[in-house]
Amino acid sequence: MTEHTAELLGTPNERRIIFLVMDGLGDLPFGDRPQTPLEAAKTPNIDALLAQATTGLFDPVEPGITPGSGPGHLGLFGYDPRNHLIGRGVLEALGIDFPLEDTDVAARFNFCTLDKERRITDRRAGRIGDDINHRLVEKLNANLKFHSSTEVIVRSVSEHRGLVVLRGKDLGGRIPDTDPQQTGVQPLTAVAGDDASKPTADLLNQFVAQTEQILADEDRANGLLLRGIDKRPPIPKIGDRFPINPAAVATYPMYRGIARLVGMNVLDPPGDVAKTMAAAALVPKEFDYLFVHIKYTDKAGEDGNYDWKVEVIEEVDRNLPALMKAKPDVLVITGDHSTPAILKSHSWHPVPALLYAPGTVRPDGSKTFGERACQIGGMGRLPMRHLLPIALAHALKLAKFGA
Amino acid sequence: MTEHTAELLGTPNERRIIFLVMDGLGDLPFGDRPQTPLEAAKTPNIDALLAQATTGLFDPVEPGITPGSGPGHLGLFGYDPRNHLIGRGVLEALGIDFPLEDTDVAARFNFCTLDKERRITDRRAGRIGDDINHRLVEKLNANLKFHSSTEVIVRSVSEHRGLVVLRGKDLGGRIPDTDPQQTGVQPLTAVAGDDASKPTADLLNQFVAQTEQILADEDRANGLLLRGIDKRPPIPKIGDRFPINPAAVATYPMYRGIARLVGMNVLDPPGDVAKTMAAAALVPKEFDYLFVHIKYTDKAGEDGNYDWKVEVIEEVDRNLPALMKAKPDVLVITGDHSTPAILKSHSWHPVPALLYAPGTVRPDGSKTFGERACQIGGMGRLPMRHLLPIALAHALKLAKFGA
Repeated sequence: MTEHTAELLGTPNERRIIFLVMDGLGDLPFGDRPQTPLEAAKTPNIDALLAQATTGLFDPVEPGITPGSGPGHLGLFGYDPRNHLIGRGVLEALGIDFPLEDTDVAARFNFCTLDKERRITDRRAGRIGDDINHRLVEKLNANLKFHSSTEVIVRSVSEHRGLVVLRGKDLGGRIPDTDPQQTGVQPLTAVAGDDASKPTADLLNQFVAQTEQILADEDRANGLLLRGIDKRPPIPKIGDRFPINPAAVATYPMYRGIARLVGMNVLDPPGDVAKTMAAAALVPKEFDYLFVHIKYTDKAGEDGNYDWKVEVIEEVDRNLPALMKAKPDVLVITGDHSTPAILKSHSWHPVPALLYAPGTVRPDGSKTFGERACQIGGMGRLPMRHLLPIALAHALKLAKFGA
Repeated sequence: MTEHTAELLGTPNERRIIFLVMDGLGDLPFGDRPQTPLEAAKTPNIDALLAQATTGLFDPVEPGITPGSGPGHLGLFGYDPRNHLIGRGVLEALGIDFPLEDTDVAARFNFCTLDKERRITDRRAGRIGDDINHRLVEKLNANLKFHSSTEVIVRSVSEHRGLVVLRGKDLGGRIPDTDPQQTGVQPLTAVAGDDASKPTADLLNQFVAQTEQILADEDRANGLLLRGIDKRPPIPKIGDRFPINPAAVATYPMYRGIARLVGMNVLDPPGDVAKTMAAAALVPKEFDYLFVHIKYTDKAGEDGNYDWKVEVIEEVDRNLPALMKAKPDVLVITGDHSTPAILKSHSWHPVPALLYAPGTVRPDGSKTFGERACQIGGMGRLPMRHLLPIALAHALKLAKFGA
């Protein structure tokens, strides 16, 4: 069954599509600033695209629904996120190039700080650095011991974040988080959601108990919170669904992971904004779809740092000429969701998008690219999963439907 | 099962709805002309409707999907085109008033030019005229001989186009086109997609082989390419789904055909724009839904003739007073899809629509009718299949849903 009529109509050609994704781009006015960061940012290079562009607002999942990073990106990649749920553990595993197998159960963990009554005092263990993380993970791998045929594999991710993978036979993966999402309480016990998940839950509880013993002498990172426990979902490849040969240019593990999960070629991590955008121009031309991911807009939003978000958007704009050396026939500039600085979190607000396609677009007359300008844009307000098919159409990669 | 909630709510009355459909109406700017043909056309009569109208942009199938004529019109008639696929052969049959039976398999054919190695040199046989077409079809019907209980019926359509119908028992219709859509190669062999279609495929291959013998001495039209081989799909009648008694005023075969396929009464072919619009006013008043089809906007788009498209739209506008003599309570002016002159083909761009309904409409403040004006119109951007129910509502033909 197809989620999109577009899947029936693919006609490959050499035209190149680039999705420039500023994570968490959508935002709100902030205090006495009536503009959003995107509206306030000086973006002459983006604005110059508008003469050959159309704009609109997109809902990653549904109106009113705040997406996580997985659903946000699945929408961008033309999937209905409601049909493809991805655990965070799976995403982290893919993002550190961990060779996850279909039968593995993966969970993301946070090192946390526990007091003497085992109550959480810091859910991120004071945001320890990568060096401490690596030392702790080595210590765990050296000391953990299980009487089980199931293998327990622990890996560093970054800062306070890590990955645990259970590799065994017939392990179920239906287990809610043990992270209570608050301080002052104990971590939750892993509880199986079905019979097949009982051995998994038992082993995860053993894992957490042993970890607390092994890390008992650590001052900050002496506990673990598990999140996104699940197996890898079967997701059809984006290159099989749509007529593209896709490549991802993304620095952060999670986004590399989700790009890999949908079957993209993931290129070497490029680094900061300038390096990421320059790297896109070096991608071999046989890749006719590039996903270029900028993380810092979301970080700024999560930090409540309006000014930083404005700066990141302006930095992206300054580096647009470098990206344009990749010669896109269709360039989409958007986000995976909104992360308003005033809310310091992901939100449900629809995401502004710009589609530049000289020669095939109906220019919508927009003079600036911003949330309020987009609300009267030519693309209207659509579910995000339609944006990739619209881009495919503008790249002339879709045949006519019906006679 | 119902595709529309509106189907559950029909309450007939005498109010009349007219859909004035300019085929392929939607367009793009063209070269140094920043306006679309609809925007550039002087349309004082249409503009005068706007004080009591609402506008919007409509997607015939889905955003990004380019519809054929069948899907485009099914959307206008309130059907989800994804649920009702119509073969081109069936459409052509209906369009020439051929009395197609439910068990018939129909295929459209093109006369083509073959070289001595049977390679296609012209897929349309130099676009021969109707007179040559008629002579060739007579020649075929006089000379074709099959040792089969299945009847093979050949009919002219127009220019290089014709129709072949197989009338027999238990004939399957799952056979892809034999038109390879390119020159320099031989026509494809008809290949059955299932067991029931094997006798059909055999007979079609015999038909093509005999035709090439019969036409061997013709200089241009010495071969046949088959397209859209299929049986008539079971489509529920529009008058059964919605509370209307429908009539079609359309000159071109395909549009008369699709109107008949959904169960409309199709009136005598009216001729050019002026005659078509005047004919609508003569339709007996028991028909409370009129589909009025103007082909030439699409022809102008397909020809890449921007100026002609402007002229056709202005001609439609000049004849609007004649159409208004049909006394519509609700008048919808729209297209079945976009056919941008610059692309010379159907496209995916959403279609502008105007709904005039004095007394029941919420006027949206539009001052002109054009693609860019519609993007901020009161109907927003919607799937085309919603437009008929919206018109039914404005004609007060739908009861309240729920208590």
